[in-house]
Amino acid sequence: MTDEEYMDLALHLAESTKGQTSPNPSVGAVVVNNGMIAGMGAHLKAGEEHAEVHALQEAKEKAEGGTMYVTLEPCSHTGKTPPCVEAIINSGIRRVIIATLDPNPEVSGSGVEKLRQAGIEVSIGAGKDRADWLNRYFMHFMKTGMPYVTLKTAVSLDGKTATATGESQWITGGESRKDSHRLRHKHDAILAGIGTVLHDDPSLTARAENGGSQPVRVVLDHHLRIPLEASMLQDEMAPVWIFCGSDASEEKKRMLEQTDAVIYQVEEAEVHLEEVLTILGNKSILSVFVEGGSEIHGRFVEEKRFQEFVSYTAPVLIGGRFAPTAAGGEGITRLNEAPRLEVRSVEQLGSDIKVTAVRKGE
Amino acid sequence: MTDEEYMDLALHLAESTKGQTSPNPSVGAVVVNNGMIAGMGAHLKAGEEHAEVHALQEAKEKAEGGTMYVTLEPCSHTGKTPPCVEAIINSGIRRVIIATLDPNPEVSGSGVEKLRQAGIEVSIGAGKDRADWLNRYFMHFMKTGMPYVTLKTAVSLDGKTATATGESQWITGGESRKDSHRLRHKHDAILAGIGTVLHDDPSLTARAENGGSQPVRVVLDHHLRIPLEASMLQDEMAPVWIFCGSDASEEKKRMLEQTDAVIYQVEEAEVHLEEVLTILGNKSILSVFVEGGSEIHGRFVEEKRFQEFVSYTAPVLIGGRFAPTAAGGEGITRLNEAPRLEVRSVEQLGSDIKVTAVRKGE
Amino acid sequence: MTDEEYMDLALHLAESTKGQTSPNPSVGAVVVNNGMIAGMGAHLKAGEEHAEVHALQEAKEKAEGGTMYVTLEPCSHTGKTPPCVEAIINSGIRRVIIATLDPNPEVSGSGVEKLRQAGIEVSIGAGKDRADWLNRYFMHFMKTGMPYVTLKTAVSLDGKTATATGESQWITGGESRKDSHRLRHKHDAILAGIGTVLHDDPSLTARAENGGSQPVRVVLDHHLRIPLEASMLQDEMAPVWIFCGSDASEEKKRMLEQTDAVIYQVEEAEVHLEEVLTILGNKSILSVFVEGGSEIHGRFVEEKRFQEFVSYTAPVLIGGRFAPTAAGGEGITRLNEAPRLEVRSVEQLGSDIKVTAVRKGE
Amino acid sequence: MTDEEYMDLALHLAESTKGQTSPNPSVGAVVVNNGMIAGMGAHLKAGEEHAEVHALQEAKEKAEGGTMYVTLEPCSHTGKTPPCVEAIINSGIRRVIIATLDPNPEVSGSGVEKLRQAGIEVSIGAGKDRADWLNRYFMHFMKTGMPYVTLKTAVSLDGKTATATGESQWITGGESRKDSHRLRHKHDAILAGIGTVLHDDPSLTARAENGGSQPVRVVLDHHLRIPLEASMLQDEMAPVWIFCGSDASEEKKRMLEQTDAVIYQVEEAEVHLEEVLTILGNKSILSVFVEGGSEIHGRFVEEKRFQEFVSYTAPVLIGGRFAPTAAGGEGITRLNEAPRLEVRSVEQLGSDIKVTAVRKGE
Ligand SMILES: [Zn+2]
Ligand SMILES: [Zn+2]
Ligand SMILES: [Zn+2]
Ligand SMILES: [Zn+2]
Repeated sequence: MTDEEYMDLALHLAESTKGQTSPNPSVGAVVVNNGMIAGMGAHLKAGEEHAEVHALQEAKEKAEGGTMYVTLEPCSHTGKTPPCVEAIINSGIRRVIIATLDPNPEVSGSGVEKLRQAGIEVSIGAGKDRADWLNRYFMHFMKTGMPYVTLKTAVSLDGKTATATGESQWITGGESRKDSHRLRHKHDAILAGIGTVLHDDPSLTARAENGGSQPVRVVLDHHLRIPLEASMLQDEMAPVWIFCGSDASEEKKRMLEQTDAVIYQVEEAEVHLEEVLTILGNKSILSVFVEGGSEIHGRFVEEKRFQEFVSYTAPVLIGGRFAPTAAGGEGITRLNEAPRLEVRSVEQLGSDIKVTAVRKGE
Repeated sequence: MTDEEYMDLALHLAESTKGQTSPNPSVGAVVVNNGMIAGMGAHLKAGEEHAEVHALQEAKEKAEGGTMYVTLEPCSHTGKTPPCVEAIINSGIRRVIIATLDPNPEVSGSGVEKLRQAGIEVSIGAGKDRADWLNRYFMHFMKTGMPYVTLKTAVSLDGKTATATGESQWITGGESRKDSHRLRHKHDAILAGIGTVLHDDPSLTARAENGGSQPVRVVLDHHLRIPLEASMLQDEMAPVWIFCGSDASEEKKRMLEQTDAVIYQVEEAEVHLEEVLTILGNKSILSVFVEGGSEIHGRFVEEKRFQEFVSYTAPVLIGGRFAPTAAGGEGITRLNEAPRLEVRSVEQLGSDIKVTAVRKGE
Repeated sequence: MTDEEYMDLALHLAESTKGQTSPNPSVGAVVVNNGMIAGMGAHLKAGEEHAEVHALQEAKEKAEGGTMYVTLEPCSHTGKTPPCVEAIINSGIRRVIIATLDPNPEVSGSGVEKLRQAGIEVSIGAGKDRADWLNRYFMHFMKTGMPYVTLKTAVSLDGKTATATGESQWITGGESRKDSHRLRHKHDAILAGIGTVLHDDPSLTARAENGGSQPVRVVLDHHLRIPLEASMLQDEMAPVWIFCGSDASEEKKRMLEQTDAVIYQVEEAEVHLEEVLTILGNKSILSVFVEGGSEIHGRFVEEKRFQEFVSYTAPVLIGGRFAPTAAGGEGITRLNEAPRLEVRSVEQLGSDIKVTAVRKGE
Repeated sequence: MTDEEYMDLALHLAESTKGQTSPNPSVGAVVVNNGMIAGMGAHLKAGEEHAEVHALQEAKEKAEGGTMYVTLEPCSHTGKTPPCVEAIINSGIRRVIIATLDPNPEVSGSGVEKLRQAGIEVSIGAGKDRADWLNRYFMHFMKTGMPYVTLKTAVSLDGKTATATGESQWITGGESRKDSHRLRHKHDAILAGIGTVLHDDPSLTARAENGGSQPVRVVLDHHLRIPLEASMLQDEMAPVWIFCGSDASEEKKRMLEQTDAVIYQVEEAEVHLEEVLTILGNKSILSVFVEGGSEIHGRFVEEKRFQEFVSYTAPVLIGGRFAPTAAGGEGITRLNEAPRLEVRSVEQLGSDIKVTAVRKGE
């Protein structure tokens, strides 16, 4: 196998763990000696062994003189686990191929440096694009301290998320919904506005066929209007975090806290996105999947507080000048100030169309 | 070459004339004798020779004993030109391969019958889907007497045709606009509402690189609010037809008529789509390209008076609960009454996405 | 439609006539005026109208001010038909787009020059590769005066054309044989050695499903060993030309001539390929399809007297050090003197593999 | 992720070890719990842990209630390692998805039975084709006790492995040679005839860029003509096994044995392929890569003692009725007795063409 094929395998290992390692990145590693794989592994869960350790443990003495392919720069500091750089040096590995550097500006490059100081040959960049895309939540978080925000919408061909009277169930088909649940599992939090909660009473859980990690449920609710009977307060599928403003009723707050919901009360009357995202970042939420509704999406767009936009479009026309759309709110006034994106993929899911786009410059 | 390859050539000939033959269909024909092409041709313009005649004229005596591949059932009645069926029989052609039958219920199949009565072997159906799609305007018109309606829109990723304050220029990119002009050329009429005329003062002409036939410009204008200085009234690029209601000012009507615009005044105060489409059909308009704006599109959607929907989506987010969308109006209230479509193609044009969908059952 | 699309149509027209125009090239032409096709056509048969004339005749007065797309430089000299350049100038065409220049060094470029002198805008090169490939027989002939030679073979996976005992029927499957008959129709002559004639008694006719032009049958037969009962001498499907050496029996020669076969007796005892090809060129044979057998192919390879090699490989292994192969003879001794080719296409035909390769530098 | 995606990952793991596990098969396993990967691994080398064990060790208590995806039926008998079936049952795994059953007729299905008896849900067949293809050497060996034989050849477009004078170096290009070395690494033995050894003095080692396992070198040499100075006898890259007949010189035999070569002397004067393959099978050689030359290939073809044929064809023509081909020998006399194959893939490698075909019914 070629270097490209070994890195491809390491990336495949890493990609298979997407959504289960947060707040850690997804990483895969392969140890090769004389053209034979001596060990391989991926980081599976925060707190557990790093990918490099799995691969070295499997390789044992066969690591000596071998090559390691790893999708992210090995760590050089002691965290919950000892630094991988030391383990690599001690193993006798002679060459390390790294897809992309650690995004944390304080440590980026220091793993490489230590490896080189130990006389190990290091090369960087093979598979970089794929490795960066895979860990885009982690990369963004490490650079900004705030979660990566994905806006998700399900619309008709004419851009409506519901009829003018609010009917919205099943606009898109089964395959889109399945795909959307898979995406939920990959995020650390699902966010919805109080309007959506009052109108649809959603459970905000991820329900892919084979399951997956359950994201935190976040509700933006200035005045704590969420009813105590709300579906998401009845189950214990995932934590419920509610953000409210300074003038929310203390009594309602107490009653909600008895349901195990966590209330984050901000100091101003209105809850600002920046504050929400800062708090979520502090709580190690690396990624937020914003389900809407339209008004919430509108605010994320106006404040340019998002990195990715995913839409599922169903082949139906609804019409209606007051029917809600993917992004409401006040909107951008000047076109040249509207956030520009880049389309990453266009897929057909059943009879629907899925578009994935990322904000330019992100 | 195989039968499929000859029919493919005939279809290619026909497709190349799309947009220039109305109110006639696009037809291609190839005459083959002993594996060699003896003649070929397409119908180029209403009033001129049919495709079969071009092919037979080129083939001369080599038609005798040969095979004709033709994309539409040959005509059997005397129109502006003598019936092709007679020409085929007289030529000595021995076998005719037809892609699809004449859609006119009164004559469908009679061409085939006469050929068979003359002892010619006829087979039908090779290339049918492609032939039907090519002539979908003609097919629809022959069955209903009304023009085929294409709704066209250019939107942001969140479904807006403009900002809330009405800015809409250049949402989509150059390739989308070029493609849109090519589509205009293929229709017999371009339709816009008075709102769009007042707001944008469009010329409503088709301006593809190499030109093409210029569609009639149709404006729906209940109260004849169109200003005499409107761009489209200054040039003579194409006829301007204005539909107004019963209470439109007689004086404005006279003034407009002096600009060469044709005024269609209906008997009721409001102009109904059905009436507009019936009149256009009577005037041999087989296809209408509806440019919008949003309110006009909304009416076509509500009344289900359209066959095709084409959207160009630009990777930008605009937001705004009052920003116009692809289809305004009152809208459909119940989702299960909303018109369902089938996506025919999804293409990337520059950084935009083009979706073409047709109404189900059309 | 764009310039590329119009040229694509002209090329499609030309390609459809491949194999029926020799000794003329295949040419297609399209006349466009204001984005509408005003005329189109292809040259169908030597002696008949050129493509440009068909297109102009159809366009009539609509040629004026229009653009012509033509796959080969229009002729400027009077041949069997008047020069197309004059017809174009007289028609009022304003712009001519040419795929490739006339390969005849004596006239190449002179058509363009005359058009330009008449004030017509000319551009050259759009679609050149496809136009050159289409007319590669013609191009080669015009440059060298000799026919383009295609070596064709049907072999097992281990390169055998027959078993060691000579069994060769049906090595390859039905689709390969069909394809091979289509290729025969496209050449002006089919050539076989006397060994093949004695062993297989082939008819050497082309028998594609829908027929096609019938190539001349050429046999290389030093000593006129061909039996008078040979299949190809019994039918009148196509001329039979036999090349023999100086010591061939005069009596056998006379007897053969009574069967309508044409005998070409060369001055030396052995028939040399160069002489054969020169004579064929003089007889306006632009392309030769060499069926084999192995020894004949071997001579074409040794003398590097070929332009193209087409093999059909069947998934069977035969073995045998004396089993015949695609190219026998003495063979090339030094690898660095062996003719190098470039693979143009690899296709799967049923369970066989077809490879088309052209000699480098051709 | 879906069941298909998890099995795809397990197969990818298994495929990455192709060529390093013999005489064991390549196997991959993934343990999933609640949509999250809890463990994964591949069998890396005979004598070491099976894939299932790697995956379970990584998963620890998270295996409980989980699903295992494994590319081959888990073993149920105690070999060098304890049976995987027991480990799976003890782990608390609830569901096992298996790509293909154990090919050994004596144990096939017994692993599944034991899992089911323990109340585990088992499903079989997802990814079967890919799993069978991956382990085709192992599958064939388990069914027949003899190694899987791949005939490999490098030829010109006209099927020659050398010129008539024996020149053969560098017929094919660099990419073909690289690919060929990768293929060598995947086999347990490389076999050549004494003719090739005398003519080319090859090292018969595998030299892929990143290395790999080094196959045993096997030479068929009836009369022990191999010179003591032969390259392969000078290095210790891999064992050299020489098969000779009953009348080989005892003295030469002794001299060769002093070079560490192993001599297999059969009881008859001639070495028969069946005997060679039986002995190799007994020595746990699961796959043989037959480099040729032509005469040796011819014998494998005549006796139908091969499973796969791989050819690299270079775009050059050599010619020559006595030039060697991919398969010499006596050859098959009757075409209907020639072994039929099925083409599995056709690839372009640089300017060469690689064809991989398997014998029908294999
Ligand atoms: Zn680490
Ligand atoms: Zn007609
Ligand atoms: Zn001409
Ligand atoms: Zn096991």
